[in-house]
Amino acid sequence: MKYPPIHYHDYLKLNSLLESQKLRSIEFGQKAHDELLFITVHQTYELWFKQILWELDSVLDVFHKDYVTENEMGTVAARLSRCSDIFKFILGQIDILETMTPLDFMDFRDFLYPASGFQSYQFRMIETKLGLKPDQRLNYNQQPFYAQLEKKQQDEVRQALERPSLFDRLESWLKRMPFTQNKHFSFWQEYQKAVEQMFLEDSETVTKNSRLGPQEREKTLQQLQGAQEIFDSLFDPEKFKKLNEENYFRLSVDAVKSALFILLYRNEPALQISFQVIQTLQDIDESLTQWRYRHALMVHRMLGRKIGTGGSSGHDYLASTIDKHKIFKDFFNLSTFLIPKSKRPLLPPDLQKLLKFGFENETSSES
Amino acid sequence: MKYPPIHYHDYLKLNSLLESQKLRSIEFGQKAHDELLFITVHQTYELWFKQILWELDSVLDVFHKDYVTENEMGTVAARLSRCSDIFKFILGQIDILETMTPLDFMDFRDFLYPASGFQSYQFRMIETKLGLKPDQRLNYNQQPFYAQLEKKQQDEVRQALERPSLFDRLESWLKRMPFTQNKHFSFWQEYQKAVEQMFLEDSETVTKNSRLGPQEREKTLQQLQGAQEIFDSLFDPEKFKKLNEENYFRLSVDAVKSALFILLYRNEPALQISFQVIQTLQDIDESLTQWRYRHALMVHRMLGRKIGTGGSSGHDYLASTIDKHKIFKDFFNLSTFLIPKSKRPLLPPDLQKLLKFGFENETSSES
Amino acid sequence: MKYPPIHYHDYLKLNSLLESQKLRSIEFGQKAHDELLFITVHQTYELWFKQILWELDSVLDVFHKDYVTENEMGTVAARLSRCSDIFKFILGQIDILETMTPLDFMDFRDFLYPASGFQSYQFRMIETKLGLKPDQRLNYNQQPFYAQLEKKQQDEVRQALERPSLFDRLESWLKRMPFTQNKHFSFWQEYQKAVEQMFLEDSETVTKNSRLGPQEREKTLQQLQGAQEIFDSLFDPEKFKKLNEENYFRLSVDAVKSALFILLYRNEPALQISFQVIQTLQDIDESLTQWRYRHALMVHRMLGRKIGTGGSSGHDYLASTIDKHKIFKDFFNLSTFLIPKSKRPLLPPDLQKLLKFGFENETSSES
Amino acid sequence: MKYPPIHYHDYLKLNSLLESQKLRSIEFGQKAHDELLFITVHQTYELWFKQILWELDSVLDVFHKDYVTENEMGTVAARLSRCSDIFKFILGQIDILETMTPLDFMDFRDFLYPASGFQSYQFRMIETKLGLKPDQRLNYNQQPFYAQLEKKQQDEVRQALERPSLFDRLESWLKRMPFTQNKHFSFWQEYQKAVEQMFLEDSETVTKNSRLGPQEREKTLQQLQGAQEIFDSLFDPEKFKKLNEENYFRLSVDAVKSALFILLYRNEPALQISFQVIQTLQDIDESLTQWRYRHALMVHRMLGRKIGTGGSSGHDYLASTIDKHKIFKDFFNLSTFLIPKSKRPLLPPDLQKLLKFGFENETSSES
Repeated sequence: MKYPPIHYHDYLKLNSLLESQKLRSIEFGQKAHDELLFITVHQTYELWFKQILWELDSVLDVFHKDYVTENEMGTVAARLSRCSDIFKFILGQIDILETMTPLDFMDFRDFLYPASGFQSYQFRMIETKLGLKPDQRLNYNQQPFYAQLEKKQQDEVRQALERPSLFDRLESWLKRMPFTQNKHFSFWQEYQKAVEQMFLEDSETVTKNSRLGPQEREKTLQQLQGAQEIFDSLFDPEKFKKLNEENYFRLSVDAVKSALFILLYRNEPALQISFQVIQTLQDIDESLTQWRYRHALMVHRMLGRKIGTGGSSGHDYLASTIDKHKIFKDFFNLSTFLIPKSKRPLLPPDLQKLLKFGFENETSSES
Repeated sequence: MKYPPIHYHDYLKLNSLLESQKLRSIEFGQKAHDELLFITVHQTYELWFKQILWELDSVLDVFHKDYVTENEMGTVAARLSRCSDIFKFILGQIDILETMTPLDFMDFRDFLYPASGFQSYQFRMIETKLGLKPDQRLNYNQQPFYAQLEKKQQDEVRQALERPSLFDRLESWLKRMPFTQNKHFSFWQEYQKAVEQMFLEDSETVTKNSRLGPQEREKTLQQLQGAQEIFDSLFDPEKFKKLNEENYFRLSVDAVKSALFILLYRNEPALQISFQVIQTLQDIDESLTQWRYRHALMVHRMLGRKIGTGGSSGHDYLASTIDKHKIFKDFFNLSTFLIPKSKRPLLPPDLQKLLKFGFENETSSES
Repeated sequence: MKYPPIHYHDYLKLNSLLESQKLRSIEFGQKAHDELLFITVHQTYELWFKQILWELDSVLDVFHKDYVTENEMGTVAARLSRCSDIFKFILGQIDILETMTPLDFMDFRDFLYPASGFQSYQFRMIETKLGLKPDQRLNYNQQPFYAQLEKKQQDEVRQALERPSLFDRLESWLKRMPFTQNKHFSFWQEYQKAVEQMFLEDSETVTKNSRLGPQEREKTLQQLQGAQEIFDSLFDPEKFKKLNEENYFRLSVDAVKSALFILLYRNEPALQISFQVIQTLQDIDESLTQWRYRHALMVHRMLGRKIGTGGSSGHDYLASTIDKHKIFKDFFNLSTFLIPKSKRPLLPPDLQKLLKFGFENETSSES
Repeated sequence: MKYPPIHYHDYLKLNSLLESQKLRSIEFGQKAHDELLFITVHQTYELWFKQILWELDSVLDVFHKDYVTENEMGTVAARLSRCSDIFKFILGQIDILETMTPLDFMDFRDFLYPASGFQSYQFRMIETKLGLKPDQRLNYNQQPFYAQLEKKQQDEVRQALERPSLFDRLESWLKRMPFTQNKHFSFWQEYQKAVEQMFLEDSETVTKNSRLGPQEREKTLQQLQGAQEIFDSLFDPEKFKKLNEENYFRLSVDAVKSALFILLYRNEPALQISFQVIQTLQDIDESLTQWRYRHALMVHRMLGRKIGTGGSSGHDYLASTIDKHKIFKDFFNLSTFLIPKSKRPLLPPDLQKLLKFGFENETSSES
């Protein structure tokens, strides 16, 4: 009423939207029925990619600031969760594309040469903005991964690579987090003590276990020692550097501390939403790797596979990129360093107060 | 190689596709973040609707001919099954749209007035081509259901209403089916005998059942008689006419015969694919009604509900259309008239031969 | 190592689990292949129902206390969200059950008489513990809804009906919420003012709108007045009582206030998780109603439908229960009373402080 | 009525079913809330596995006969399609299991030692009956893959390994298929001619293409020759033997012929259902490999990953098995050998007649 009325058709620009499907097979006089499905699936992918970039950009805007206000964190969590829902949802589009048979694909695949999903600018931007680094990618034909994009798009990818990604921003945000150290309490020291205590107890249990023969006991103690050494690499800067070099962790040790703090004390009010954010990023990573895997399976189904030597096939290439491409692998690897709830260091009251809501502190100070 | 090369970006017309999202909230200077989600969900719906129309039109082309060759039936089954997969898939888009909260919707809903999903031309065409009749629709404001479409679109809907729908074509195809009657065998007579025999046996079982007291026995016998009367309406033209008038069946009695024949003898080679087609049309109908129901739930969630008298709310309107809108209800209702496999009339050898493959007949005639 | 070792097979009690599928069709010497599917679908439903009750009970334990500590709210949100995920997931089991055809169902359905999904004790308990009241249910054969359960189960349903449900606990929790009123600020007064202001401005816009003719203007103003009257029923105790009687709201006016406060100020740290809880309960309600609807569609497909008078069919019964059974309808209806973000009353600093984290207040008091 | 009445609760053996969840954490006095979820997810998996075995066994029963009647093929297709639906569906259970956090898993994972999904007898049987061979599996600790099962189960796996699998039965069924050769027509000869003709035309196109420079032309011609050599391995028994040895094809050359015949002439009535069967087996294979992949991702998420040398982690092991485990890889690889529809050899009329329905032949012989 206040604004000029608009029709559904115009609002959604259906004229241009529904005229953007041009079948090459028709252009070349050999109409292939299933080409529209191929176009529809890729176009809906691109619309969803645009949506994901829109959400990611808004999240990055929050994190680009030096100080993330907590009022914005609910929105950040909701928007990343929406991205995760979308990634999960569009996995299903591959099922629909696979209702096309390889023989039907043959009807038009020659017309598409050399168009390829590798040329999706938006998908490259999503990966880049989330934080995938060029050296995590497989080198394809010795060219940068964006070599097949259009000129202007290449520039934009290069610029995006230079700006901090969501991963980078999370790293800073974790490093800034003010909870792991105060005058009376060092989370890192207490955690280290707890780890040592845990291994001490475990060794005693093994030593005292009468069900074990001497050889078994020896073997189990060695395993325990191996496990302890893994933990040790957290505390020794030289060893941690090696974890960074091996790409086991891309996060700095300070960021790892805060992340571990969140995982262990996620029930504290001030950590509940941050914990959700970490979980959601893992969900997104899983969906992305699953999508790559499904894509590789589909390529195998549609094109088969070349034999023996003479150039790796599309399928092999895709299959080999899957695991390397995990962006938030750090959070997966962090599970290695969790300790049981009962062993967690107790948080001192002044730290707890910081993590509670104002009204909780009010109430307790009144009483 | 044989054809001029093309880039992914140009092939998918991403320039026009990705510039078709114009947020009204930005146009009016009050950017609402979630408006893009609203647009994306509706635009991907429209792309999928176009795909469904493409498949439906190709199926209608097969059925528009006087004689459907069996070589085409595999394709028909596959394409309808693809439609069903798409309908099932896009149900999930509502989950994604519901990540938008009612408060966020408020940020831009005034800008959209009076745009509405009722104005989707393609959805109206899908319903019409499948076979939804105007009198199955609720009358909204005393206007034809297509009154809100654009002028040219209204003409096209009217034309589509005059052409035979998929439902109509199935009716003709079922009527033409040459299996229910030959020189020595009338399926309809044998089926009627089988039904009578079935009820006779059931009555005897009840009469002889010593666990039943006299009252119970009487009541059960009455129920059986009621059930038998339902079957009787199939065999009495006057009663069947009433079924047509009550919209219990839209199919003619001859089409119902063939449909029942397919359901009962679906294992005969010549009926296997036809049986799949009937199942898939029921799947599509279920998805369509579920989609309407989900849509009604979402409207309730987003807009709430007006109170008391004074105009039905969007939610109430939508909820009341759901069941009326079933297109292939006949096939659901047909389950009423199934009889157990063991009671099915035996098909005579000459009829069986028609239903087998050439190579099966060859083999048996050779031996 | 510390505990006696256990084998997967024993841990999961697979002996008893996998011997709990007894086909009646086999017992009566007429093996029906698809009966196992029927059993599997219902048994997996029951396992998931047990899981949902386990989560619900743990959530109720938190809410049963007089004071819900905020440290527990993250867990509450996560467990309800898990319930929602499960409800959404098991919707898909109906698709699998529908791979059974009506003719195949006939092979064994007589053996099952009178077993029926209405006899699922666990499902009745889920509905009851969430908060479905007996008077929201359709009266079936003039008996209480639990009449078909076993004696002991009937007692437990009756007891559950007498204990506070999740709905009841939420009502208390919302009523207790200490944010809508303090010495200097009454949310309800400010909200009422904002509503009045909103309608005033809208009326002015209409009056000044030169695009409207006199009749249109009059009509629009009347609509506005109608909308305003709806809001009025919130503020007038007599009218609100009517909303309660009409089952428009089951919540008391104080609980409605707090719920509206959460919906409007959901970005405040102390409200973010509570807001998620409200959304998740709506998701659960949607899944439950969808499940009932799918179930009704399936019954129609499997059994067809009786004709004319003489007893409502299973399908009709199920279809009519759907909307009545919504448990958290209040939260859907609340959308009616949202106001745009820009019109929300400003929260005074002392109230804001209560809603922030301790560390935020610390930081600001230091500076 | 005819049969003793039964209650839902007894029919589903809910007493034993719902008492089969014994939490070890409770047994050892340290109740871990999320252990029930862990049990529920694994128990529902096992119920679905039992269902899948039930379907598979019924399909194997059909194929175990020397002659598969076509009346049974519709049922075979439907039951395999049901298996595929179930496999796709249960993929989603991992999403639900992942609502458990790694820290919560820690609460009870020590109690489970050494129980492991590797000990699922039913899953091993599914793999074995479908046709996974022991040499396709990774050797884990130098023991047979079934070493961790119970004694009696080990025997049954060994027996199943000796019986023909579904893969083996398909091989025989394809070999027996009577369509690729008759007195006047050899599909294999005609296909070979068509392949040669196709490469001849492609070479000419390249040679005449004035857009190509001499170097490019040379390179393209070499690529064509490479592609042709791949096809050649089909026709040369020595080369085909190598394909068998490299596990590129497990099928014999005669089975490959028939499979290719089905893929190319799938529209012939007698091939429509067989074609669906091949597609469905690929769907099943994709779901199984996806499931293994998701499982590996979940293990990474829950347990993290050991560092450096010293024993491969669960995740690494699982990730490496994924591709090797494809059972129906042959059908994927067959896509390599498809030729465009327009190049397919024409089928002679007598062969076509074998592939049509009796009633089609009747009609045409009458006219």
